[in-house]
Amino acid sequence: MSIVDRLAAARGEIECDLVLRDARLVNVISGEIYLTDIAVHDRHVVALGDGYAGASEVDLDGSYVTPGLIDAHVHIESSLVTPPEFARAVLPRGVTTVITDPHEIANVLGIAGIHYMLERARRGQLSMFVMASSCVPATRMETSGARLEAADLAPLLDHPWVPGLAELMNYPGVALGDEGMLDKLALFADRALDGHAPAMTGKRLNAYVAAGVQSEHECTTLAEAREKLRLGLTIFIREGTTTRNLLPLLPLITPENHSAICFCTDDRVPADLIDEGSIDFMLRQAIAAGIDPVMAIRMGSYNTARHFGLRKYGAVVPGRYADLLVLPDLRDFHAQQVYRGGELVAKDGIMLSQRRQARPLDRPASVNIGGASLDFTIPARGETIRVIGTVLDQVVTRHLVESARIVKGCAVSDVERDILKFAMIERHRASGKVGLGFIKGFGLQRGAIAGTVAHDHHNLAVIGVDDSSMRAAALALADGGGGLVAVDGERILASLPLPVAGLLSEAPIEEVRADYDRMVRAAQSLGSSLPDPFMAMSFMGLEVIPCLKLTDHGLVDVERFEVVDLFVQ
Amino acid sequence: MSIVDRLAAARGEIECDLVLRDARLVNVISGEIYLTDIAVHDRHVVALGDGYAGASEVDLDGSYVTPGLIDAHVHIESSLVTPPEFARAVLPRGVTTVITDPHEIANVLGIAGIHYMLERARRGQLSMFVMASSCVPATRMETSGARLEAADLAPLLDHPWVPGLAELMNYPGVALGDEGMLDKLALFADRALDGHAPAMTGKRLNAYVAAGVQSEHECTTLAEAREKLRLGLTIFIREGTTTRNLLPLLPLITPENHSAICFCTDDRVPADLIDEGSIDFMLRQAIAAGIDPVMAIRMGSYNTARHFGLRKYGAVVPGRYADLLVLPDLRDFHAQQVYRGGELVAKDGIMLSQRRQARPLDRPASVNIGGASLDFTIPARGETIRVIGTVLDQVVTRHLVESARIVKGCAVSDVERDILKFAMIERHRASGKVGLGFIKGFGLQRGAIAGTVAHDHHNLAVIGVDDSSMRAAALALADGGGGLVAVDGERILASLPLPVAGLLSEAPIEEVRADYDRMVRAAQSLGSSLPDPFMAMSFMGLEVIPCLKLTDHGLVDVERFEVVDLFVQ
Repeated sequence: MSIVDRLAAARGEIECDLVLRDARLVNVISGEIYLTDIAVHDRHVVALGDGYAGASEVDLDGSYVTPGLIDAHVHIESSLVTPPEFARAVLPRGVTTVITDPHEIANVLGIAGIHYMLERARRGQLSMFVMASSCVPATRMETSGARLEAADLAPLLDHPWVPGLAELMNYPGVALGDEGMLDKLALFADRALDGHAPAMTGKRLNAYVAAGVQSEHECTTLAEAREKLRLGLTIFIREGTTTRNLLPLLPLITPENHSAICFCTDDRVPADLIDEGSIDFMLRQAIAAGIDPVMAIRMGSYNTARHFGLRKYGAVVPGRYADLLVLPDLRDFHAQQVYRGGELVAKDGIMLSQRRQARPLDRPASVNIGGASLDFTIPARGETIRVIGTVLDQVVTRHLVESARIVKGCAVSDVERDILKFAMIERHRASGKVGLGFIKGFGLQRGAIAGTVAHDHHNLAVIGVDDSSMRAAALALADGGGGLVAVDGERILASLPLPVAGLLSEAPIEEVRADYDRMVRAAQSLGSSLPDPFMAMSFMGLEVIPCLKLTDHGLVDVERFEVVDLFVQ
Repeated sequence: MSIVDRLAAARGEIECDLVLRDARLVNVISGEIYLTDIAVHDRHVVALGDGYAGASEVDLDGSYVTPGLIDAHVHIESSLVTPPEFARAVLPRGVTTVITDPHEIANVLGIAGIHYMLERARRGQLSMFVMASSCVPATRMETSGARLEAADLAPLLDHPWVPGLAELMNYPGVALGDEGMLDKLALFADRALDGHAPAMTGKRLNAYVAAGVQSEHECTTLAEAREKLRLGLTIFIREGTTTRNLLPLLPLITPENHSAICFCTDDRVPADLIDEGSIDFMLRQAIAAGIDPVMAIRMGSYNTARHFGLRKYGAVVPGRYADLLVLPDLRDFHAQQVYRGGELVAKDGIMLSQRRQARPLDRPASVNIGGASLDFTIPARGETIRVIGTVLDQVVTRHLVESARIVKGCAVSDVERDILKFAMIERHRASGKVGLGFIKGFGLQRGAIAGTVAHDHHNLAVIGVDDSSMRAAALALADGGGGLVAVDGERILASLPLPVAGLLSEAPIEEVRADYDRMVRAAQSLGSSLPDPFMAMSFMGLEVIPCLKLTDHGLVDVERFEVVDLFVQ
């Protein structure tokens, strides 16, 4: 079938594939809700109005119809599963399109990682647009598995599923006119250019925006969001697993500015995707808090399609894909039926199609710590140390200065004060590089936890009470090809293998979620008081988010944007 | 200068070119009005906020600053002057960007006509985007100077000033899936696709939209505009010289839908550009009628930039061109100062820069009627004739059926009943083709008027009381290389030469306007009661606007979309 058939169907000359009768359409373009029939043919909406006949006809009896939801910015890797499994989680929730930044897998596997995601997307049931990862590695203060320069990204320009350049996390570099950053900005000048500039303000923020950046999803306070919106950035309000920005930012939204606001999830663990949902969860929260439903739906669909120039998405009007939701109630936003491309793909929260067997793809070994000594001894060179201070439910940290606990001339974990040893082991190139530091807030009383998920370089992170537990945890992951592990001395309490790049499981998301819950319980049995210590740990190496982080190069003072000594002289 | 300098300026490390202090900024993105400084460097806005120093600093003392206005759809040829002269008319009014469809000149000169406009735009002071003309000729029921197929338009795809495909006037062809139309739509699928479907409704309209069309500027009634907006078309509300749609369509606009509404002028004669203005005139009218000024300004700037994907236009925020207006009062929307690319180009309605001498371009002879007999005799083949019924201030006509005045076996003009002879002489290929008919509403008591401006084929149109006056008028234009003329018998009362394609003068717009006024007075001295008989005549050959029109092929019944006999049997 082709456009010729669609036009014949729209003219009413041939039978449509599907007619939805008596739909209460939420028209996100005209801003109205009204009763109409919706005619669908060859994957597209072809007509609104009366008098169409369909091979299949469904009487909606006045139920609401909205566009399929769109996630403006998500790292699918945070779901720990492959794109088809991610799709199984979010499609029944009503999310039919995502714009994803594959920079986790790209940091491990380079362009091959981006192609892995594009290939898996092709076989999934979600419309998945893949932004070209702009900051691989995020900075020079880490070792990643790959380095992507403008020339490496150039071939992606012609890919129909690549709408632009992903979050420009090297915000100091962009604002300072770093040559590599400007090359990438110039290459993608006519495309979407996503930002990432947490807490940036004033003149430096002006420079960042003047470079051409178009969006921001890192706002955590109202004042920050207001300043950024005024400078012309489209604000992607985020409700991730760790980063819960929706409720604090709701007062930003007005009828006058909401067309420059979109919704995104950024990073969500399997449990949150399954229990809470995705963009649908944000809509429920926003509407419950008093946001007009049509405005909320626009921010969760149309605005995002428009921002990214996705002209066939985001609205139920002729010429666009028939990605749409049927709901009995707009306020309790639960999709009863989810259509994608005119096909009913989910009903009452359940996927209708079977899980498809994906074509096996190359899975290069990605955990290669080689001859790293795994000796985490820290000879004391002073009495005062910098300590990463975790902040509950945030990816930012505090930059603490504490007295060290010194035993036999070495700085060691201090369980009483919850100051634990933290190691970041380079795992891509077997360089033997290991960054060492201390962290407060994880609460382990014994043992260690470790993972190969550590944004964005995804080196091997270990937090532990004693060196032998830490060594055992690191070795377990190195031997197993990556994943998460909790150990108590030599004993492995729980593990979750992530064989794809040390980031993703190929198991069904429900299994991964159950395994993940076991991991959290194991960490809690070791004393951790955090709701999700593995997620928290995964951001403790992210040196583009303030204030103090640890990479394989050592401690990074994000505000000074340089590696600093563990010991304060 | 480059992006590197702009970022340094934004960071406050070097002096900016210009700082506007104490501006009351109309922020079209956040929907707010507030006081701020605006820093400009290297043609761009680089920063909003305090603490910037400028080589030039202007204290605005709380005056309003808005984005430069954008005309969403205009045929510059209707101004009868070249792009630099058009710019002189609209820039002091605050219009800094136009999206133009050069299909008038393209119908005469083909791709060379489009290149003429692009070349003239390059030397003008207006940001002029040129849509690729989609319907040259408009239909097969006329002879034009060129025929542009998809293959002819393809080279324009790579031009940075060509945002998309111009108004798809062959709306029956689009809705019916005409192969040539679909080829062009496919070629420009990722770009802007402008519509033109006057009075189209229901299933055919659904098909037209399903083909991918994105905008509509032909709405004349509220019901029509509502139906089209609901189908997802961006509505360009138009206020041309003849087509005055703004006031009737104002009730369409709501806070909920206005981001899908833009303003355009389509066709404006020099007098209206000079006396009333352009988009600024629309803003004044809209605001006076009660539309919120920020909403009105959005429809006249930001919405249009966004619709066409012009990411560096339409808002005063960092990274965009410093195209902005300074006004003491938003309601009486008269720009006191107009900046384009950070340069003050007009002040108090007066252009500051001198008229620049344009590089001479090839001007191929474009009026070639060859051996056309110019014998306008119409032997009577019946007693009843179809008559084009003009409608004041509209380009639509009525399809009248009247008894013919027969003299000596021939149908002739009937001054008493204001039924005048109307001829359309093919002027591009010397084919000798002449269409003959009658028209009501021009009111001439003697003589004839003629012009080589006749949308969209721009053949030579003549309306007259007697054949010898008509012949004299046609010959005057053929000899003079095109333009407008009014004759009384053999005597030429007034003429306006339009040597560029028979459409444009290269004289200053003030002179053209004075000449044009003389033309209208001459026509009125012949008895015409129309406010502008030449403009009205120029649309009487446009066979894509209902109901009855005349081309060189003969009378066209637009609703049946076919050539019909003058005589009703």
